[in-house]
Amino acid sequence: MRVIIARMASNNPQRGKTELRVVSKWGHERRLEFIDWRLCWERRINRGDLTSFFGISIPQASLDLARYIELAPDNAKYDRSGKVYVASETFQPLYPGTTPERYLNELLARCAGVMQPELGFSGWTPPMDMPANPARGVDSRTLLILLAAIRHARRVDVRYQSMSAAEPEVRQISPHALGYDGFRWHVRAYCHSRGSYRDFVIARVLQASSTQLDALSAEADAAWHRWVELVIGPNPALSAGAKRVIELDYAMEAGQATVTCRQALLFYTLKRLGLLPGQEGPPNVQQLALLNREEVQAFLPRVT
Amino acid sequence: MRVIIARMASNNPQRGKTELRVVSKWGHERRLEFIDWRLCWERRINRGDLTSFFGISIPQASLDLARYIELAPDNAKYDRSGKVYVASETFQPLYPGTTPERYLNELLARCAGVMQPELGFSGWTPPMDMPANPARGVDSRTLLILLAAIRHARRVDVRYQSMSAAEPEVRQISPHALGYDGFRWHVRAYCHSRGSYRDFVIARVLQASSTQLDALSAEADAAWHRWVELVIGPNPALSAGAKRVIELDYAMEAGQATVTCRQALLFYTLKRLGLLPGQEGPPNVQQLALLNREEVQAFLPRVT
Repeated sequence: MRVIIARMASNNPQRGKTELRVVSKWGHERRLEFIDWRLCWERRINRGDLTSFFGISIPQASLDLARYIELAPDNAKYDRSGKVYVASETFQPLYPGTTPERYLNELLARCAGVMQPELGFSGWTPPMDMPANPARGVDSRTLLILLAAIRHARRVDVRYQSMSAAEPEVRQISPHALGYDGFRWHVRAYCHSRGSYRDFVIARVLQASSTQLDALSAEADAAWHRWVELVIGPNPALSAGAKRVIELDYAMEAGQATVTCRQALLFYTLKRLGLLPGQEGPPNVQQLALLNREEVQAFLPRVT
Repeated sequence: MRVIIARMASNNPQRGKTELRVVSKWGHERRLEFIDWRLCWERRINRGDLTSFFGISIPQASLDLARYIELAPDNAKYDRSGKVYVASETFQPLYPGTTPERYLNELLARCAGVMQPELGFSGWTPPMDMPANPARGVDSRTLLILLAAIRHARRVDVRYQSMSAAEPEVRQISPHALGYDGFRWHVRAYCHSRGSYRDFVIARVLQASSTQLDALSAEADAAWHRWVELVIGPNPALSAGAKRVIELDYAMEAGQATVTCRQALLFYTLKRLGLLPGQEGPPNVQQLALLNREEVQAFLPRVT
């Protein structure tokens, strides 16, 4: 978002002093990105697409389209009979955001109910589905307390139901980040009761209350700041053809690919890939193998 | 997105006829939603937040804030010294989109690089991370051909590398939807070569070319349209306390919860939950059990 800072007279004569006004160029740039996006994914755009999406006037839409064609003259041709700009065969995205990754991510965002899906640039989208996530939602009040604590570096008192204890326990924590394991949200925090950095699943926080105590800094959380490299390859039990397919799926070179993750997320990353010690499955299900298990193993926390 | 359709004179005198102009109310409504969002998640908002995000004037921002307070007088108080509206203790979201789910999804969207992250309403966001997805990206040209085929109900010829064949094979398919298994994108399509609906992993499509042949309709894809109900509970091998935690995580009642999915996504849904036949793990890893396995089993395709 590019902005111009312009100093101008206040419009409040009573105060009679100047103030900073931020003049956003967001609108104009975004409309050009929108034209680029629609031309790429819908292969066409007209003034009506712009006026209805942005609520701008028809003359403004004409100006925007003219400006786009000026910047990328080979990307589209005007079809007079249809009153529409049609993407050319040689169309090349003008903006770095016009990618298949973003297109597909927007589909995911729509399907999963990510915020403000109507903001997506796409008009028509294909039918699409994905596996549901059955995990419980997060309590709004608990989340707010954790966010405020992270932002202002304060401790939080929580009543927490852990896997290992029979009953909920009260703990004081210094939260510094959020994590998502693919199903559940947790807060990464120093646990003052246990004297170490740990993950607290937010749904297991039965009660939270803020304190005015300074938090312990995140800097000492070595497992959060350390990155681990996983070397993955196709499951050796697969046929030669199937191995080639897995290599294709994961863009492997010479039979392997590298995945990096924070040590604090290693357990979840391995679990997600089905590569935790003890996780097993037939090769059609467990298509991947961990090629540097010995190295990686050293970074896994011992189960307590 | 609410719009008003207004018939007005064309601004092109040469054409001399009227045309429909869509006047979007998107801008105004969105700004009120933005105020609601910021008050909820940042607990404060001032005119500068509105002017810099939307590129509107200061008087317009004042009007928007006044309008919001008119609609939700108990949600915020003006702090004259800080020139900022501060959320009250009793703040209640005015808009249904102001939820923890959307807030967290926006974090995911930012972290995963979902499109246009600068469009999110949040200002400050906490540090956050999640496991990486090592899957290969999708080829832009292949995706465009598949999308056009879905949209216009046409067949596509693909050169496809399947798991079961040693070499790539040419097939004609009628695609009708996209699917995401948590790692990989596939296209759901009728395979004219094999005479059944199947999933084609997009990264395994080595070549695609559109045809002018009408596609077979999606209506006959029974596995896409049939919904299967999974009953999940905590792994019985867990301790009583740990079971309670899993019940908490997944909002289970009386020790169980229900997950529904399309039959066409059943394999991926079970795999994601670690519940496929043959998938095993120690209870600290495999925390869930499938309580109606016999029923569900009947909907799983036999592995070919």
